[in-house]
Amino acid sequence: MLELYERLDAADPLAGFRDEFVIEDPDLIYLDGNSLGRLPVRSAARIREVVGEEWGAGLIRSWNRGWYEAPTRAGDAIAPLIGAAPGQVIVGDSTSVNLYKLVMAALRQQPDRPVLVSDDLNFPTDLYIAQGAIDTLGGGRRLALLRSSDGMTIPTARVLEAIDERVALVMLSHVAFKSGYMYDAAAISARAREVGALVLWDLSHSVGAVPVRLDEWGADLAVGCTYKYLNAGPGAPAFLYVREALQSILDSPIWGWFGEADPFAFDLDYRPAPGVRRFLVGTPPMLSLSAIEPAVEIVRRAGIERIREKSIAMTGYLIERVDARLAPLGFTLGTPREPERRGSHVSIRHPEGYRINRALIEEMALLPDFRAPDNIRLGIAPLYNRFAELHEGVERIARVVQEARFTHFGDERDVVT
Amino acid sequence: MLELYERLDAADPLAGFRDEFVIEDPDLIYLDGNSLGRLPVRSAARIREVVGEEWGAGLIRSWNRGWYEAPTRAGDAIAPLIGAAPGQVIVGDSTSVNLYKLVMAALRQQPDRPVLVSDDLNFPTDLYIAQGAIDTLGGGRRLALLRSSDGMTIPTARVLEAIDERVALVMLSHVAFKSGYMYDAAAISARAREVGALVLWDLSHSVGAVPVRLDEWGADLAVGCTYKYLNAGPGAPAFLYVREALQSILDSPIWGWFGEADPFAFDLDYRPAPGVRRFLVGTPPMLSLSAIEPAVEIVRRAGIERIREKSIAMTGYLIERVDARLAPLGFTLGTPREPERRGSHVSIRHPEGYRINRALIEEMALLPDFRAPDNIRLGIAPLYNRFAELHEGVERIARVVQEARFTHFGDERDVVT
Repeated sequence: MLELYERLDAADPLAGFRDEFVIEDPDLIYLDGNSLGRLPVRSAARIREVVGEEWGAGLIRSWNRGWYEAPTRAGDAIAPLIGAAPGQVIVGDSTSVNLYKLVMAALRQQPDRPVLVSDDLNFPTDLYIAQGAIDTLGGGRRLALLRSSDGMTIPTARVLEAIDERVALVMLSHVAFKSGYMYDAAAISARAREVGALVLWDLSHSVGAVPVRLDEWGADLAVGCTYKYLNAGPGAPAFLYVREALQSILDSPIWGWFGEADPFAFDLDYRPAPGVRRFLVGTPPMLSLSAIEPAVEIVRRAGIERIREKSIAMTGYLIERVDARLAPLGFTLGTPREPERRGSHVSIRHPEGYRINRALIEEMALLPDFRAPDNIRLGIAPLYNRFAELHEGVERIARVVQEARFTHFGDERDVVT
Repeated sequence: MLELYERLDAADPLAGFRDEFVIEDPDLIYLDGNSLGRLPVRSAARIREVVGEEWGAGLIRSWNRGWYEAPTRAGDAIAPLIGAAPGQVIVGDSTSVNLYKLVMAALRQQPDRPVLVSDDLNFPTDLYIAQGAIDTLGGGRRLALLRSSDGMTIPTARVLEAIDERVALVMLSHVAFKSGYMYDAAAISARAREVGALVLWDLSHSVGAVPVRLDEWGADLAVGCTYKYLNAGPGAPAFLYVREALQSILDSPIWGWFGEADPFAFDLDYRPAPGVRRFLVGTPPMLSLSAIEPAVEIVRRAGIERIREKSIAMTGYLIERVDARLAPLGFTLGTPREPERRGSHVSIRHPEGYRINRALIEEMALLPDFRAPDNIRLGIAPLYNRFAELHEGVERIARVVQEARFTHFGDERDVVT
């Protein structure tokens, strides 16, 4: 009689996609694809080609042989994954810089609306960017920060209440980085539109894991990361989305030549490019950028609906194992139990979370990550994670606690935990 | 009896450095290292290591094994090339985004000084960034743009006259992208300091080719590109310099987590990091970033003084060949004849420059580049260019004109020329 996890793996229609990724150590259980996705085999090949053939042999000519269009091409490749018609997504700069451009544009476009709504579930850099933009623009603008009771969830209804005619921009993470909690983005986008506010979604923890329907929601703006569930490599450039109708109304504050109407005319006066391209700035980092398209192709081939289906099954299975094996050892669940309210990672909390996480990484060949004060995040990447890994992962966590294998670790924090 | 160029190559102490670079086609004469430097052999190896071992096998752990410090490490590697003591240079974002951060910081720090001085020799994206910053900040600020008579040079004395107590920032390219003209940066920096203005140097066409002495000049701010004479690859992240005394006074407008005092504490309120690190923003593109250090190491090993010496010899030799062979064919020199007033590229002008340039690229295995209206730029990278290439390159240009081999090309412009 097979175990449940064995039957689930055997019936998994995406099981073959694991072979698309470089897996050096089969004993290592990698549950941090929500932080840095694994290396796709085809991306390694593509990067070799960009370095050797395009840079090495093609030299400057490669700008005319595909590099120049790479930011829009990568954007159009991502667009279907976030429910965006073509021509609304481009790739370039970091998520933070993209956020800055859009937050500044949104606030400046509505000088009579002083409020930017966000929440304490948001990724801190999003809040920093908002604080910096408000500091720069002044004019009585302020950040209205919704606070959760426990750092893990805020009911959508509370957000809806906070959106009124004084609000210029609602800026939220669709899926919260700490708890995996997912907002009802359609309802929030609709409410923003109703009162004439703009809404900006950070899709960093959604894209590639959860279907996103920006056009259908009536969302205005979005940004997102390509190195988590899209597997495009460490610090790969981020994308941004601007709804078509807004592209001629909003201005990037950073006027760079890649966002200019005719960059190689070298005119002295800036004229923004038509369309979403005006939100580009400088020459993009081609090595990092070139890893996006091959990685996104895998996600599209698997199909975001099938990925989501497997993700829900896996987070559900993991939560059952947490209840059965880890709750008796002092763990509590940080992630919502309703599948429609969670993304693709499961947060488990324990007062000794930091030291347990270190023991898992350093001695148990299990890689989750830790977010203060007490969250161990178990990220599930349906393209390469197996149910067997979740089963075995929970057993390793249980062993660390049962056998007190974390107690010899100090509490000093690494720079990156 | 050897030809002059043969004797010069034979006596070249840097000749061996050519072997540090991947050269696929020995017949191709590459005179565009001022736009995209060649691929160093060791960089290709380093990128393979970052992809395969650090991303593929190390996964998220690699952030604790050197990635996190890469922006400051690469900055400190570049620092000696630009005459900067450690702790004043970091790498991250594009040149344009770095410029934006520094221009905004400089203007905001001096609200009572309305003028930003620049010139029409500057790279247009620099002017666009300034225009965008002024548009954002308002307050009566304006760009005072010095105009050249011919787009090629402006006497340093004219810049000095334009710097007075109303000036917040002087922002210039040290070496002009079109003509290769080089300002007396020490004199301009001194004048700025005298009247209490800040000065920002764009070193994109200097770094790795010309000794730069930011600390000695008393410069305040600088930015620069790593993919030209530093050979770090297409769109590799750019550096920025902030004089130590200014680091606690100036604030980046883009408050991102990599510039935060303790990014992995995930505090909700931004506190800038001490030192130059506060000018970082988001997660850097690691593949592109990782190609900087091995490439810069080659430049440092060769020595910037020896590179400059060879560069002056090469631009001098090339100008002699232009006078002898190309002037009779209708070419004029766009670059100053005084060695101390030029960088490492030579601009030659011809009414048919665009079509001649296309013929060189497509049929003569010579890669220069073209900048409107009539400049063909011949970039010299002393680490891998030979005098023989300059001799032969001039012969190929002469042949294109003498044999009218450009006349079948149209005048339609590529996106990247």
